[in-house]
Amino acid sequence: MSVAAPGIEAAMRLAIEHSYRVKGSTYPNPPVGAVILDTGGEVVGVGGTAPTGGDHAEVMALRRAGRLAEGGVAVITLEPCNHHGKTPPCVDALLHAGVTTVVYAVADPNEVAAGGAARLAEAGVDVQPGVLADEVAAGPLREWLHKQRTGLPHVTWKYAGSVDGRSAAADGSSQWISSEAARLDVHRRRAAADAIVVGTGTVLADDPALTARLPDGSLAAKQPLRVVVGKREIHSEARVLNDDSRTMVIRTHDPMEVLQALGGCTDVLLEGGPTLAGAFLRAGVVDRILAYVAPMLLGGPVTVVDDVGVPTIAKALRWQFDGVDRMGPDLVLSLVPHRA
Amino acid sequence: MSVAAPGIEAAMRLAIEHSYRVKGSTYPNPPVGAVILDTGGEVVGVGGTAPTGGDHAEVMALRRAGRLAEGGVAVITLEPCNHHGKTPPCVDALLHAGVTTVVYAVADPNEVAAGGAARLAEAGVDVQPGVLADEVAAGPLREWLHKQRTGLPHVTWKYAGSVDGRSAAADGSSQWISSEAARLDVHRRRAAADAIVVGTGTVLADDPALTARLPDGSLAAKQPLRVVVGKREIHSEARVLNDDSRTMVIRTHDPMEVLQALGGCTDVLLEGGPTLAGAFLRAGVVDRILAYVAPMLLGGPVTVVDDVGVPTIAKALRWQFDGVDRMGPDLVLSLVPHRA
Repeated sequence: MSVAAPGIEAAMRLAIEHSYRVKGSTYPNPPVGAVILDTGGEVVGVGGTAPTGGDHAEVMALRRAGRLAEGGVAVITLEPCNHHGKTPPCVDALLHAGVTTVVYAVADPNEVAAGGAARLAEAGVDVQPGVLADEVAAGPLREWLHKQRTGLPHVTWKYAGSVDGRSAAADGSSQWISSEAARLDVHRRRAAADAIVVGTGTVLADDPALTARLPDGSLAAKQPLRVVVGKREIHSEARVLNDDSRTMVIRTHDPMEVLQALGGCTDVLLEGGPTLAGAFLRAGVVDRILAYVAPMLLGGPVTVVDDVGVPTIAKALRWQFDGVDRMGPDLVLSLVPHRA
Repeated sequence: MSVAAPGIEAAMRLAIEHSYRVKGSTYPNPPVGAVILDTGGEVVGVGGTAPTGGDHAEVMALRRAGRLAEGGVAVITLEPCNHHGKTPPCVDALLHAGVTTVVYAVADPNEVAAGGAARLAEAGVDVQPGVLADEVAAGPLREWLHKQRTGLPHVTWKYAGSVDGRSAAADGSSQWISSEAARLDVHRRRAAADAIVVGTGTVLADDPALTARLPDGSLAAKQPLRVVVGKREIHSEARVLNDDSRTMVIRTHDPMEVLQALGGCTDVLLEGGPTLAGAFLRAGVVDRILAYVAPMLLGGPVTVVDDVGVPTIAKALRWQFDGVDRMGPDLVLSLVPHRA
């Protein structure tokens, strides 16, 4: 059967939406979304990767579609896997369900799991790769693909600052630079992350709990690992050491040592102050910047980052904006490294 | 006659566009745009305020419409004037042309010129005030309305900075933080301004010419007054003193003294460095911020502004975003003072 391209793209956008819903809960599996269309092009099943060790997105969506999948189209954000892990290969499930077309966004870079597309094609299924591939690779699968490619967790440096690049007023006060809307967004982001990294300086200055909270103030179901980096002593009563989540203290100033200690993580949120953020930037291990910019001016000595190792303008650290959004009265700027 | 509201709004947007074309060339008159619709609602004449002492926008548009204005609609960004200045009242021209409806955005706050709407209504013309009033008041007439209200020029603080709020690298180098697209936009903005203000520090450090240039590098037809503020001596060979435009040197550190010396100006562009910008912000005489933000990080000591008089977060200078645009690889953020 054939479905017109606009219908396929709309289905892929729905699959992307479902992949975002499961993001942060699927480790070590990637957060994938899948949509099943019946022979008439109607959506008859949607799904996202189940929590760790559970079913993959295709299987979730096929289960919801039942017999309606027969002769239909599977639209998936990642190439279906072809290996027996904790679950049987998704390719088997797709063939068994009798879909005649499989559309996916991004090819599986994982050698063990790859080959799914080839096996489907051999079995006579019409395979269409690359639909909205850039959007998926830069979006829901960004961190997982980075981990596959480099072996290191993906690091997002998140900060809240004023338009003039300050993270606090001259006396160190900073509650609240960003609006409630922005703070809620940060908590959503924390819940999706595997770990939150701060320096001992932030713990000593602000005593943050570093938990992910729901809009009503209660703890989110999933809490990221809390990571405190640095050599200064922190008080045993510090909120970051409470029982709301696990906490790891890493006594180093070297960002690479931190990332190696976090080998089990895919998506790391760096919420460090100006010194720690500078160290990560100088080491070249920040993969995304997420800046919550409040429409205020503060002036003074407390900047969002201090030394980033740039002596002269020709050596500037060059990024590019890949998202600019309003969030209540604030802006959220997303930047990724500049591709020359 | 009657024209449906969407047609009237579209005509007002066309009038706004024409007002922007003449902005910066109309002093002391406001930059106004006007559109004439015939009895069928078709555009038969458009116009903007002619240069100083010349015809007002309505008269320009009526002249182009000729006899087709009879029975038609005049759509104007500002209430038509009712006084004999260098030109006869626009109200007379509208009545003489026989338009039956006059639509305008903003009422004339100038006591001498006001009363136009009342006289038109007395003469039996259907008068519709307030169409897109907020857009015009915040847009093409912003600076002129500010001057009418306060007696002082409107000050836009323009700067180019990195995402982390730096205006130069640690060694002072800053060419070029912003992209060519952003620099062209600055030159357009300069050509529309009456004056550009910098401190002696900027002259000594960067030796800028402070001229408005066209994309081919040649001088724009209209050049703003160049204003150098501060007590340090500047070299007689400084480019800001060349013959490309006039230059005023004001030997003070007090922003209010500067504004009083610029009493003949409506639209002042502050391009000062961190010290001068801080002084204007502390004095509360910045009316808009125009930030060209480049997707780079610089770190280090050279911030876009230094002391803005904020000791603690509760005293932050609060603004609001009224425009967020991409400009090539950069962002242009426009902020106006926060309305509580």
